[in-house]
Amino acid sequence: MTQPANETGGARRGRPGHDQETVLRRAVELFNRRGYDGTSMGDLARELGFTKSAIYHHVPSKSHLLEQALDEALDGLEAVIAAAEENGSVGAYERLRQVVHQSVEVLVAHQPAVTLLLRVRGNSDVELTALRRRREIDARLAALVRAAVVEGSLRDDVAPDLVSRLLFGMVNSLVEWYRPGGPVDADQISDAITTIAFDGLAAGRR
Amino acid sequence: MTQPANETGGARRGRPGHDQETVLRRAVELFNRRGYDGTSMGDLARELGFTKSAIYHHVPSKSHLLEQALDEALDGLEAVIAAAEENGSVGAYERLRQVVHQSVEVLVAHQPAVTLLLRVRGNSDVELTALRRRREIDARLAALVRAAVVEGSLRDDVAPDLVSRLLFGMVNSLVEWYRPGGPVDADQISDAITTIAFDGLAAGRR
Repeated sequence: MTQPANETGGARRGRPGHDQETVLRRAVELFNRRGYDGTSMGDLARELGFTKSAIYHHVPSKSHLLEQALDEALDGLEAVIAAAEENGSVGAYERLRQVVHQSVEVLVAHQPAVTLLLRVRGNSDVELTALRRRREIDARLAALVRAAVVEGSLRDDVAPDLVSRLLFGMVNSLVEWYRPGGPVDADQISDAITTIAFDGLAAGRR
Repeated sequence: MTQPANETGGARRGRPGHDQETVLRRAVELFNRRGYDGTSMGDLARELGFTKSAIYHHVPSKSHLLEQALDEALDGLEAVIAAAEENGSVGAYERLRQVVHQSVEVLVAHQPAVTLLLRVRGNSDVELTALRRRREIDARLAALVRAAVVEGSLRDDVAPDLVSRLLFGMVNSLVEWYRPGGPVDADQISDAITTIAFDGLAAGRR
């Protein structure tokens, strides 16, 4: 999910296409491994085999790379919620299950970018903007849970905000251990999450 | 849970007691906010109002602080699992519920240290040792889940390893949003987690 340059606010520099994308992927990897604040443009240049001045031919700044990665993750998650909110053909319970399922797909497809998003602490304007978008996402998820409780399909003895945090905490946790090509795929993960969360683990509940 | 000096491998320096503890707490806060690799001993000195040379009067090294914090989190989690493993008076299902409940208590009581632990990536010997201990903890949790499946109290149509990862992913997620003195306490969180995970969210399952 590459952002058009006019939407990410950064000037286009250097060669377009593969190189730009490669720089972004390697930068996100490095940010996740060493921490964003612990990674310098010099580190990134070294990682890519560029000189420190050549790196600025490819990207205007470190925060531009962070912004592109966070936009990638947030755009994906926002699209999932919007699709569920606009799905008038099913009830709130099914819309919530749809969000869980499609969120897992986004996390698996954009794992490094989402990992970076989940570690953002608000140390810059770019991070504060991302945190604001995360809070809006959380509010929309909590509203979906509340709608399912009101509809009578979800138990009402656990606070909807707590359900929302824990349910999507379980979803988000997969970025910590999911490995592409590993023993489980996105469908198996989202099936497991919906089974655990909606049906429960206790025997005799299938 | 302050570690005795002889168990954490670091030399005791500076004034003991309150100061030592304060330095550790502030260091963990800073590591969580800026990333461990993004925080220098100079940053920590500034945060504490010490000169850069005075900080070494209080702590031998940055990695010593990291080690103390990771030990605090890991010791707490390991103690919870050991207590459940040694609890012969109840079945595996109850032991698993006990681990969920007591893990939440450890996460709430040692939230900054656990937050740091969950972000460790293996960038040094201290981090690699912590990752090895985390893997052992994960294996013991998965064994508890398997025992509950074998016992017949847990559904057998979701792979135990996946159940274990997702269940404790949900537990761990609370470090991201739990705030001491906030609207929910540790008991409410662990009750919500066990209700969601064991009984399921679908209405009519209480």
